[in-house]
Amino acid sequence: MLIDWKKIAWKIFEDIKKEVSRMSKKPALWALLVWDNSSSIRYIEQKKKWAEYVWIKFILKKLPEHVSENEILSTIESFNTDDNISGYIVQLPLPSHIDEKKIIKSISPKKDVDWFHPENQGKLMIWDKTWFSPCTPAWILELLKSTEIDYIWKQVVVIGRSNIVWKPITTLLINEGATVISCNSKTPNIRKFTIDADIVISAAWKPGLLTLDMIKKDAIVIDVWFTVIEWKIYGDADTHNMDLAWVKVTPVPGWVGPLTVAMLMKNTLKSWK
Amino acid sequence: MLIDWKKIAWKIFEDIKKEVSRMSKKPALWALLVWDNSSSIRYIEQKKKWAEYVWIKFILKKLPEHVSENEILSTIESFNTDDNISGYIVQLPLPSHIDEKKIIKSISPKKDVDWFHPENQGKLMIWDKTWFSPCTPAWILELLKSTEIDYIWKQVVVIGRSNIVWKPITTLLINEGATVISCNSKTPNIRKFTIDADIVISAAWKPGLLTLDMIKKDAIVIDVWFTVIEWKIYGDADTHNMDLAWVKVTPVPGWVGPLTVAMLMKNTLKSWK
Repeated sequence: MLIDWKKIAWKIFEDIKKEVSRMSKKPALWALLVWDNSSSIRYIEQKKKWAEYVWIKFILKKLPEHVSENEILSTIESFNTDDNISGYIVQLPLPSHIDEKKIIKSISPKKDVDWFHPENQGKLMIWDKTWFSPCTPAWILELLKSTEIDYIWKQVVVIGRSNIVWKPITTLLINEGATVISCNSKTPNIRKFTIDADIVISAAWKPGLLTLDMIKKDAIVIDVWFTVIEWKIYGDADTHNMDLAWVKVTPVPGWVGPLTVAMLMKNTLKSWK
Repeated sequence: MLIDWKKIAWKIFEDIKKEVSRMSKKPALWALLVWDNSSSIRYIEQKKKWAEYVWIKFILKKLPEHVSENEILSTIESFNTDDNISGYIVQLPLPSHIDEKKIIKSISPKKDVDWFHPENQGKLMIWDKTWFSPCTPAWILELLKSTEIDYIWKQVVVIGRSNIVWKPITTLLINEGATVISCNSKTPNIRKFTIDADIVISAAWKPGLLTLDMIKKDAIVIDVWFTVIEWKIYGDADTHNMDLAWVKVTPVPGWVGPLTVAMLMKNTLKSWK
């Protein structure tokens, strides 16, 4: 079976829209764009489109690419102190002359709807559910919930290497009570773990890493991200050769972008309230 | 083989002492004690003893048990703003009328040598090695290093349930490149994972949880904490019935207290520099 990302994303957007429609004062999401390269512009446009779809105002502040670090810091400071701004994002990457870590550190954790500040990462570790969630791991959880599998107490394999996806999804699922096996690209014999797993989550950026013989019947395979090789998009799972009566798998390319944006809107709504 | 905690702790203390002895201005560790119950007093005395052993000044500030939350917050604020104080601890637990989370949140992350503030927990997630380490997970790493096992790329099982030990040791070992299997008390058939593991770390507070038939030859078993039943101390590993030619295991009771304090002194030294 293919897991229908689109249906899940739509449901989240519709739920947010319904909630916002009842609010007399609509929430707003502010965005700071410093480097307007083509992919950053595409991401910003996608965020704007979906924010407006759910009636969240989207306010873009642009700074020129050659701006100084201090100018960025003082813009962020003005965002931090402005009571009208409940949540904002700083579109990454920043130009190479800027210290990205320093900028992230200057964002007020209370307004950090993108979940980049270390304090917010730490709140995940102590499982403070009242707080923002990391966007990608949060939709993975929504997706698992939608499959109605009882992921608590199950065996989950997470394959990856990133601070932004792999580690927080591991922590999130540990928090939820799952037995989590965290593999990385150097783990010898990943199959040993995947073959018994109820859920396999892959964010390894390795096309063809997961083949049907590595997955047990009725397991759920979530292919988090994708790799582009010669203009073609590949996931980590070799879905073309997978028997869809055997596994439940997310198709790649899928709706990973809108799902991530959906969770950003959820955080924005939280910051507003 | 029994792993010699004591030798490892001594080496850390001697290294710190050597470094401090070369400093013209000696570091200091400040401690705030609000509730002087017998076990808090014992912990404070142990910290004082070891701090003084390595020539770190130990300065205790006491507040009466019935103090208000605001008085504690203003004491902490004075610690945060005093340039003479580079690092301090707030001895937990606090009396029940105090919001412990709020107090922890008010500690400046830069002076939080006990590693309780969410921002410091988040820095572990992004593996910022320049920063403080969580005390218990840090000595587990020191202990693994002392056994000269190449824990990177190995299969490690971590059994537990706490925010302060289990989750950070999982994150720390993931950061270091190990394949980590995180089990909790409800994981069905833990043996399935332990039997193949090179390293088993248990912080489950379940005496007798690990028996010899669950461990492969030459594996390392680290029993993190202990349980007291009828005045007797038990670890999670049934060491009495373990063949010490088969496994390397930490004896319980061991030197877990001093090792944790040793890592606190390391953080104190870091805060001073």
